[in-house]
Amino acid sequence: MAQEKQGKLDELKRRLSEIADLSRAEGLLAWDQFTSMPSGGAEARARHMAALGRIRHEKATDPEIGRLLDGLEGHAASLPYESDDASLIRLARREYERATRVPTELYAEFIAHASATYQVWEQARPANDFAAVRPYLEKTVEYSRRMAECFPEADHIADPLIDVSDPGMTAETVRSLFARLREELVPLVRACVDAGTVDDSCLHKHYPETEQLEFGTRVARQFGYDFDRGRQDQSKHPFTVAVSVGDVRITTRVNEYDLSEALFSTLHEAGHAMYEQGVRPDLEGTPLATGTSMAVHESQSRLWENIVGRSYPFWEYYYPQLQATFPEQLGQVDLDAFYRAINRVRPSLIRTDADELTYNLHVMVRFDLELELLEGTLAVKDLPEAWHARYQADLGVRAPDDRDGVLQDVHWFDGTVGGAFQGYTLGNIMSALFYEEAVRQHPSIPEEMRQGRFTTLHSRLRESIYQHGSKFTAGELVERLTGGELVIEPYVRYLREKLTPPGG
Amino acid sequence: MAQEKQGKLDELKRRLSEIADLSRAEGLLAWDQFTSMPSGGAEARARHMAALGRIRHEKATDPEIGRLLDGLEGHAASLPYESDDASLIRLARREYERATRVPTELYAEFIAHASATYQVWEQARPANDFAAVRPYLEKTVEYSRRMAECFPEADHIADPLIDVSDPGMTAETVRSLFARLREELVPLVRACVDAGTVDDSCLHKHYPETEQLEFGTRVARQFGYDFDRGRQDQSKHPFTVAVSVGDVRITTRVNEYDLSEALFSTLHEAGHAMYEQGVRPDLEGTPLATGTSMAVHESQSRLWENIVGRSYPFWEYYYPQLQATFPEQLGQVDLDAFYRAINRVRPSLIRTDADELTYNLHVMVRFDLELELLEGTLAVKDLPEAWHARYQADLGVRAPDDRDGVLQDVHWFDGTVGGAFQGYTLGNIMSALFYEEAVRQHPSIPEEMRQGRFTTLHSRLRESIYQHGSKFTAGELVERLTGGELVIEPYVRYLREKLTPPGG
Repeated sequence: MAQEKQGKLDELKRRLSEIADLSRAEGLLAWDQFTSMPSGGAEARARHMAALGRIRHEKATDPEIGRLLDGLEGHAASLPYESDDASLIRLARREYERATRVPTELYAEFIAHASATYQVWEQARPANDFAAVRPYLEKTVEYSRRMAECFPEADHIADPLIDVSDPGMTAETVRSLFARLREELVPLVRACVDAGTVDDSCLHKHYPETEQLEFGTRVARQFGYDFDRGRQDQSKHPFTVAVSVGDVRITTRVNEYDLSEALFSTLHEAGHAMYEQGVRPDLEGTPLATGTSMAVHESQSRLWENIVGRSYPFWEYYYPQLQATFPEQLGQVDLDAFYRAINRVRPSLIRTDADELTYNLHVMVRFDLELELLEGTLAVKDLPEAWHARYQADLGVRAPDDRDGVLQDVHWFDGTVGGAFQGYTLGNIMSALFYEEAVRQHPSIPEEMRQGRFTTLHSRLRESIYQHGSKFTAGELVERLTGGELVIEPYVRYLREKLTPPGG
Repeated sequence: MAQEKQGKLDELKRRLSEIADLSRAEGLLAWDQFTSMPSGGAEARARHMAALGRIRHEKATDPEIGRLLDGLEGHAASLPYESDDASLIRLARREYERATRVPTELYAEFIAHASATYQVWEQARPANDFAAVRPYLEKTVEYSRRMAECFPEADHIADPLIDVSDPGMTAETVRSLFARLREELVPLVRACVDAGTVDDSCLHKHYPETEQLEFGTRVARQFGYDFDRGRQDQSKHPFTVAVSVGDVRITTRVNEYDLSEALFSTLHEAGHAMYEQGVRPDLEGTPLATGTSMAVHESQSRLWENIVGRSYPFWEYYYPQLQATFPEQLGQVDLDAFYRAINRVRPSLIRTDADELTYNLHVMVRFDLELELLEGTLAVKDLPEAWHARYQADLGVRAPDDRDGVLQDVHWFDGTVGGAFQGYTLGNIMSALFYEEAVRQHPSIPEEMRQGRFTTLHSRLRESIYQHGSKFTAGELVERLTGGELVIEPYVRYLREKLTPPGG
């Protein structure tokens, strides 16, 4: 490579590394805010976060990055697609376009609006006061549209918004995948409901905090989550933050009267964290050094939480240990009863509390309503009723108010309308596809699981997905691993096999 | 004020606020590094810190700040000296000069050198290998000189280095204060030594961690350290970090076989923290919103640790509580014996373990040697022996090696030679002066202390010192409170009264 090109590439890397470092620092500030910050620090912390975000945006939209990228186009084309440098340039181009297409002023206006909206929502939800947030949400839809319109080449108004969390994904693809999945889910849910109620009272005895935490971290460690490069703390809502490849932190929340809360959230976050910990260490300091999309991230959290952590083989190994930890609570409960309890299917009102199956119906309601809002076929004023109608139709339940209806999720109230939900169900679909691929490569995986060993599965996922960071999009990963596009069949097979009631 | 001036002032404030925010974020990253970070995060964290520091330096040296300051000179002169705006402009001018006089390249070179030196020192100290750090330290002296020479108006080569931590202080002033103090200290130390050994074995029984921490935080809270705007964690070396006026954190270190370690470090850091918590909240987001100098900061940590926390009235109140917390260890030890133990004077080798009195002799050794190195009258190669000679002469002790000799403190090995030590003893001198002033205003303070009440003292210090943040220099604070310059008499009076042996 000519010296001039090398100089340009070095300068691009220097700039991207600085942007990545700022983003990691923001991650740490957020982690601290939700785990450690004393209440008196809130106001200044918001300013610190805003300052770092603003500086990062300034640096990410510096026209010099555009010039460097232009000057490196030929060079990138001459490199193998998979090479680190070509991938870095490709990703940098995508992020530069995304950051610069939306005028800085519009973006800043929206950020301020989103922050104001969040504050109103925080009061409005407990007060069940949709009227208070309605004008804010109307403006949010308007801003979401205006920002999406900065990408006129998009086929659908939602595409640029979806692209932020799931690059390359489109409304059309998601809609069609979801429609087919829905056809499969609805009869399966009905069969579960018809089969009668499952008793899960064994999960709601008193389970002391210390033992719950100890058991969860023991499993996470055995999965392969590395505590020398991570830690677990408590927070109101569980989350994962990657401060660097060598410092990936998870949080959990303990409910002493619900055994599943801390346990499965720990396994879920451990999945996210193992993805981030598995990135090739030498990508650190570049924008490649983090998970590639929301959907792929969710595929990993869901794989470890559900496909592994709610599986029968897993509990054949762990249930005796759990019983030994909680002999009074579980000594008289047999494995089958416990397994049925943690896999109980029951339509309910709250997405985050939903079972593995109906969870997707919650997501689809939101995704469809988002598209209608963006397309202009649904007005914000009609949203609460549209919400109730869809819940009635799809899940057979109706929230008594908006608090547990349209106001339940923070997403529309702290960001755009559009782009924030599809990743959850896309992730579920991918989780089964990736797991099936791993078992195809290593048929011993389920048997190893029965012995509490996860190394083969973890290594395969690290090799096929984690190590690459953001080098490949979700679609490219699926193509590399299955030779085709994303399909729902593995996920449907998995759900049917696991959740079809006896005789169903 | 004309609209144009207001625009300039707003723009200056916007820029200064961004610089302050970056600095606060760096503080949080440092806090996390020493309290929470998993070991795997170290390498990337160093890069994050460097990136934030570099961006902050770029912003602090932006010529636009110089232009804004030039344009606001007339405005500042028209305002009362004490007004927020005049103070802000004054401080911004001082910091801009300091940041821009040293060429950015020289500064960056030095930062890289300091970081390399630190890494060598970390290995060299346990290995007792002065030869390994010697070439690094020689370069450090050279860099320190070169950076100081960027301020040719200074009377002494050390002045610009001292000015970094103690603005307005000079080598001449410090030298003369220290010389007079030394004359007082040496005979007092000798008298203490001649009076015979004090038994402090009661401090070295087994004191379980939990009770130690609980007792320390109880006292800190009663002092007035606000845990809603702070928190305490454990770290290898105790420190205080102000993430904002509303979020000031302290750390401590527990030794289960030394009761004084966690206890007095907690009171010490609480003093630092109360200073930062006491800044007027509306200064937050400006460079005024933090303590004004190292010496004033130490004056507060030392005041609360020593003048209050090692005083007889204080323990008249707290000793029964301490005995109740540790009945087996202290039940048979009476108050007088305990008081003598925590105030034992004994020349020793390690500065950070030194008693209240000899501590200053440790500082003076370092300060004098620094000046000689900078003046060129002492070569680095002769430093270890010069160190031993001074310890022998001043303290009557000689370290068996360099590990506990010239290699003991990190300061010369992670920053400049010059400027890092004088603040400790200046702070001691000021602590007595400020305390005496508070008691003059409120003679009830010692009696209140005997009842475990500290509100009057805390309020007076907040009113006279804390609230102003960096508005006044140390010299200005002393002048405002005593009408004169910094003098050693209150400190000498305090030490004599407290530490002169019976019949001495």
